[in-house]
Amino acid sequence: MDRLEVTEKIIAAKVSSGIKWSEVAAKVGLSKEWVTAACLGQMTLSAEQAGVLAEIFSLTAEEAKWLTVTPYKGSLPTSVPTDPLIYRFYELVNVYGSTFKALIHEEFGDGIMSAIDFKMDLQRENDPNGDRVRILMSGKFLPYKQY
Amino acid sequence: MDRLEVTEKIIAAKVSSGIKWSEVAAKVGLSKEWVTAACLGQMTLSAEQAGVLAEIFSLTAEEAKWLTVTPYKGSLPTSVPTDPLIYRFYELVNVYGSTFKALIHEEFGDGIMSAIDFKMDLQRENDPNGDRVRILMSGKFLPYKQY
Amino acid sequence: MDRLEVTEKIIAAKVSSGIKWSEVAAKVGLSKEWVTAACLGQMTLSAEQAGVLAEIFSLTAEEAKWLTVTPYKGSLPTSVPTDPLIYRFYELVNVYGSTFKALIHEEFGDGIMSAIDFKMDLQRENDPNGDRVRILMSGKFLPYKQY
Amino acid sequence: MDRLEVTEKIIAAKVSSGIKWSEVAAKVGLSKEWVTAACLGQMTLSAEQAGVLAEIFSLTAEEAKWLTVTPYKGSLPTSVPTDPLIYRFYELVNVYGSTFKALIHEEFGDGIMSAIDFKMDLQRENDPNGDRVRILMSGKFLPYKQY
Amino acid sequence: MDRLEVTEKIIAAKVSSGIKWSEVAAKVGLSKEWVTAACLGQMTLSAEQAGVLAEIFSLTAEEAKWLTVTPYKGSLPTSVPTDPLIYRFYELVNVYGSTFKALIHEEFGDGIMSAIDFKMDLQRENDPNGDRVRILMSGKFLPYKQY
Amino acid sequence: MDRLEVTEKIIAAKVSSGIKWSEVAAKVGLSKEWVTAACLGQMTLSAEQAGVLAEIFSLTAEEAKWLTVTPYKGSLPTSVPTDPLIYRFYELVNVYGSTFKALIHEEFGDGIMSAIDFKMDLQRENDPNGDRVRILMSGKFLPYKQY
Amino acid sequence: MDRLEVTEKIIAAKVSSGIKWSEVAAKVGLSKEWVTAACLGQMTLSAEQAGVLAEIFSLTAEEAKWLTVTPYKGSLPTSVPTDPLIYRFYELVNVYGSTFKALIHEEFGDGIMSAIDFKMDLQRENDPNGDRVRILMSGKFLPYKQY
Amino acid sequence: MDRLEVTEKIIAAKVSSGIKWSEVAAKVGLSKEWVTAACLGQMTLSAEQAGVLAEIFSLTAEEAKWLTVTPYKGSLPTSVPTDPLIYRFYELVNVYGSTFKALIHEEFGDGIMSAIDFKMDLQRENDPNGDRVRILMSGKFLPYKQY
Amino acid sequence: MDRLEVTEKIIAAKVSSGIKWSEVAAKVGLSKEWVTAACLGQMTLSAEQAGVLAEIFSLTAEEAKWLTVTPYKGSLPTSVPTDPLIYRFYELVNVYGSTFKALIHEEFGDGIMSAIDFKMDLQRENDPNGDRVRILMSGKFLPYKQY
Amino acid sequence: MDRLEVTEKIIAAKVSSGIKWSEVAAKVGLSKEWVTAACLGQMTLSAEQAGVLAEIFSLTAEEAKWLTVTPYKGSLPTSVPTDPLIYRFYELVNVYGSTFKALIHEEFGDGIMSAIDFKMDLQRENDPNGDRVRILMSGKFLPYKQY
Repeated sequence: MDRLEVTEKIIAAKVSSGIKWSEVAAKVGLSKEWVTAACLGQMTLSAEQAGVLAEIFSLTAEEAKWLTVTPYKGSLPTSVPTDPLIYRFYELVNVYGSTFKALIHEEFGDGIMSAIDFKMDLQRENDPNGDRVRILMSGKFLPYKQY
Repeated sequence: MDRLEVTEKIIAAKVSSGIKWSEVAAKVGLSKEWVTAACLGQMTLSAEQAGVLAEIFSLTAEEAKWLTVTPYKGSLPTSVPTDPLIYRFYELVNVYGSTFKALIHEEFGDGIMSAIDFKMDLQRENDPNGDRVRILMSGKFLPYKQY
Repeated sequence: MDRLEVTEKIIAAKVSSGIKWSEVAAKVGLSKEWVTAACLGQMTLSAEQAGVLAEIFSLTAEEAKWLTVTPYKGSLPTSVPTDPLIYRFYELVNVYGSTFKALIHEEFGDGIMSAIDFKMDLQRENDPNGDRVRILMSGKFLPYKQY
Repeated sequence: MDRLEVTEKIIAAKVSSGIKWSEVAAKVGLSKEWVTAACLGQMTLSAEQAGVLAEIFSLTAEEAKWLTVTPYKGSLPTSVPTDPLIYRFYELVNVYGSTFKALIHEEFGDGIMSAIDFKMDLQRENDPNGDRVRILMSGKFLPYKQY
Repeated sequence: MDRLEVTEKIIAAKVSSGIKWSEVAAKVGLSKEWVTAACLGQMTLSAEQAGVLAEIFSLTAEEAKWLTVTPYKGSLPTSVPTDPLIYRFYELVNVYGSTFKALIHEEFGDGIMSAIDFKMDLQRENDPNGDRVRILMSGKFLPYKQY
Repeated sequence: MDRLEVTEKIIAAKVSSGIKWSEVAAKVGLSKEWVTAACLGQMTLSAEQAGVLAEIFSLTAEEAKWLTVTPYKGSLPTSVPTDPLIYRFYELVNVYGSTFKALIHEEFGDGIMSAIDFKMDLQRENDPNGDRVRILMSGKFLPYKQY
Repeated sequence: MDRLEVTEKIIAAKVSSGIKWSEVAAKVGLSKEWVTAACLGQMTLSAEQAGVLAEIFSLTAEEAKWLTVTPYKGSLPTSVPTDPLIYRFYELVNVYGSTFKALIHEEFGDGIMSAIDFKMDLQRENDPNGDRVRILMSGKFLPYKQY
Repeated sequence: MDRLEVTEKIIAAKVSSGIKWSEVAAKVGLSKEWVTAACLGQMTLSAEQAGVLAEIFSLTAEEAKWLTVTPYKGSLPTSVPTDPLIYRFYELVNVYGSTFKALIHEEFGDGIMSAIDFKMDLQRENDPNGDRVRILMSGKFLPYKQY
Repeated sequence: MDRLEVTEKIIAAKVSSGIKWSEVAAKVGLSKEWVTAACLGQMTLSAEQAGVLAEIFSLTAEEAKWLTVTPYKGSLPTSVPTDPLIYRFYELVNVYGSTFKALIHEEFGDGIMSAIDFKMDLQRENDPNGDRVRILMSGKFLPYKQY
Repeated sequence: MDRLEVTEKIIAAKVSSGIKWSEVAAKVGLSKEWVTAACLGQMTLSAEQAGVLAEIFSLTAEEAKWLTVTPYKGSLPTSVPTDPLIYRFYELVNVYGSTFKALIHEEFGDGIMSAIDFKMDLQRENDPNGDRVRILMSGKFLPYKQY
């Protein structure tokens, strides 16, 4: 048994039960973004949180234990994603990557936006011309220091 | 002459003059995100806008004309970026890609967040534990339709 | 269980029963192009449509449920396809890609032809010199906007 | 000198003069699709046609001669295109590739749609919900034969 | 079940029984080149031909049916083959590719040698300095046409 | 200066003069296949043969000397060729590779067809249904030996 | 002009003058590790520091200005390095990568060792069996947090 | 059975029992770095050491024997790692690779730091600004010699 | 069943029994280099030789038969090997490849060293500074001929 | 100026003068293998040795200085070589790689054959069936040690 098998069991159980990610998140008591990522094998849960998921998805004690082990991360099967929804994010990195770099360095100097000390919030934005996906990302700026 | 040479000339002129992207954007009268992307060879300008850039960066009429031609987009030299700042965005796609997909489909059904009908806003977020980079993305949801 | 297994079961059942894709489409009441893509794991069906497929291909209720979940898309095993029929389409993109780009931008300005708000129709074209494959594609033009 | 340099000279001359591909095609007396592909280095012209292009784009006799030599084809810099417009066509191949294959074989048996004995027509399709790009492709079906 | 499993069963049955490809071809009544390719999962058989193979290799009716479905072609596990015999053919394409191109265009103009309307014959060529492999390939020339 | 520059000069000189590869070969006194490959930078010439080419293509003594140095071989810019004519040969390797392997081993045992002790002949084959490209390849069989 | 040209000029000037990296670092007043990385185009200098380098390597004012612009980082030409010295570090990541991951997570929980808030010290370690390279790395641990 | 299966069984047993790598190392009597690497399938154990691991992880005699066979090394699933923790080490090689090379050659001349005659020590470094990961690497310098 | 399964069974049986490759070779009556390669799935055995291996490794008649079929060769999982021992050979090709080419052509003219009509001998070389691996390779030179 | 330019100048000078690698080596006073590798940009020379080469190849003092700087190694343009002579060595690694690994570990235990403390000797081996290339490689065995 490994984490991948637990992830697949969670996904199958979710399809079978019809529960929503936002409902799972509410039971865990954290944001839907972090909880979904955790269920999809990208984050590490506490024993207590794993217990909540175990109950929702009928996991065994052995399976729940895997949720508390830091996983090997990366949720995509190829380095350039083939799924159209995910590709659009890759396209944003490709088209706007140099813009992200230029503007963040202009404002903060040399360094990066952390992808670890990071959080995000994904919402529907009502719009008469068609609703929009609104994603707010917030990552700590980490400066390169001289030594 | 091609667009790439114009982009390189703009970058060199910017280093030489010390003007900021936000100042360039103010002169063009649009957001700093869009204007920076355009200067970096990813967007198409009107003749008038190209004229403003030509003045700022001392471009010839021939060079300014290239800014009005739709460019071949993609601003990164490799499919997995090597620059640490840009890589962090690729990492977000890699770690959170399946989460983006799960949550957007849960809220909107099958479809994508447009990377064309899209805008973003990048700001400094003051924080006593270290300032943060705050990025607000907004893209129209485009549903797959049956036919 | 996952969507791939359902796709494989559908394909095997189709080989076994000898039913045609156009007949499947007629029972679902949509175009043969969309229905075939859905059966091959690329589109999302309503519960009712999934029920029709379940009957045709003897799927269990669990399997039918998977057809209503948005799949991870991409139907080819390699980034450059090896199958001669599919490669010819890749070759068209390779040889005519810059032509598509030049002509669409000339007519519409900067933007893309949507691959989401998209439909197509594939027909036999009788021709005394050998019949031809006729494909009519129609995708909404999405302009890049300034912000 | 090689064909690539002639292609680059043509593109630069077109940007400089502002002539449209459809106008170039009208002067050559062929479709805009074929002529654009030829100008972009993908097709072979007769001496007479090369002469027409030479006049439009101020090519030397030496440069015009290169237009009559069959070029090494392929107009994209990477195997997965980064430009959003061209990528959408690649995405269609990726998502619908197995559908193309299934439907063409169902109608015609084993074989391919030729990408050589092929023509296409690209038009604007007026639509109150936003104009559409309409592409009609027609390629001869070539059957595999037993021997 | 899929075509790959049928191919593997045929190969295993052939190893087990010791029958030769040329003997299989004689029973099918076609060339050994085409029949071997079909057995290795690259060509489509008629129901009658599939029946002959079913008898030779003890296939079930279900398995025989798969032989009549057009397969996803491509018989090599990597894009640059590692097997020394197959690599030599790839090397010929690599070393002589530009020569094939130059000589065929010189003789025929712009176009290709079809790999679909194609046949070949592979024979032993007796030679006192060591026998030789003699391969005769014949493919229809398909010209690019203007439109 | 290197061999590549000499190759490019030869190609440019050929375009300019309009001489045919078969005429070049006749002057050298060898087959058009070998001579074309040599001119395209894949084979090594004697000083005398280089002298013949130098006269045809107006090469300097220095340039002619490069023709007598064994070149770094491989005439294609990518591992999977993008040019449709050359791709068809790659496709043959991909589709028929396992067939070549099966039939050559059946006839000769373990070993390879040499791509070094190799010659070929490329001819037009008149055919009322459209002329055909006829390629006869002959390579020495080299057996693996036990030691 | 771009940063890469400045890097190449620095390297050429260093070869020509014979100055050591440690001497350059002493003049800048920082560690040899950081200063070498900066000279090789990976770090951003202050105007004053750039002035010191300009004097050492005879850079123009324009060239010195480029040293104060955050560069596009990544100092290797291929994703798997070919140089034996650099490859050994890649090998360590390949062989010990899962060990780094296991031990850091065991000690710190889920998170990463920062490659930004990072410093290192490289020294000769005298050893009778042959001197050793001793590298001390120190990077801040950054924990993933729940939100 | 192969080494990979034994590695997977060890990892699963470790998750199940909750034992720490440092405790395993203490029982084996070697550093936690070497022992973890060995458990993860990268090093070769003596029969006695394998016996200790067999007891800790309930391995069969057959499985323990595999631990004494030199494994095929390499612990990462892709050539550029996707896991953020491991990627940071790859990033260090990418950003600092040329610096490693420059400083080691300056101190030692042409040669490499051995990744075989190598040891390392990984520790927590307490720091009021956030604890740090401290890695001390020591590898023998191996000079290229002339012959 | 296929050759790979037989190879895996041989390796597992070898680990289990503890027999050495040199002992296996002695029983077969050929060099340890050829016999090891054959056991690892790279060479073809006679029925008699396969019988010897069947006895040593307890293979069934069916499994032994697979040893007499020419295998698909290539024994490495990735095109650039990750295992440090095997990588060193790849490094030699990378660093010394152009030297091999230069010296062999200087001595023999245009052609190759055969990897088919090839044998090698691998021995321990006692040395007071540490024993050495000594590999003697001998391959027939095959000249390119003109035709 | 960089090392690559010096390498290219050496190669061009060698073609022009017709001197042999073995003659160059004799003047330097080292083996032809090491000296050729050094001339091809893979090894580092002393100032004195660089002076000998400078005289042979008419290098400037500046160019000679580059020969004393440790180069970025790797002499092949692609990770899988396309040149037939060099490919055969890659093929040996591919086919015999697992055999090298098996036999060296059997004789020496876990470790590698050094590619640094390494020398080789390449000779013609007269043979009535065709002369052979004989390569003797000798590399120090480096054992992995426990710590």
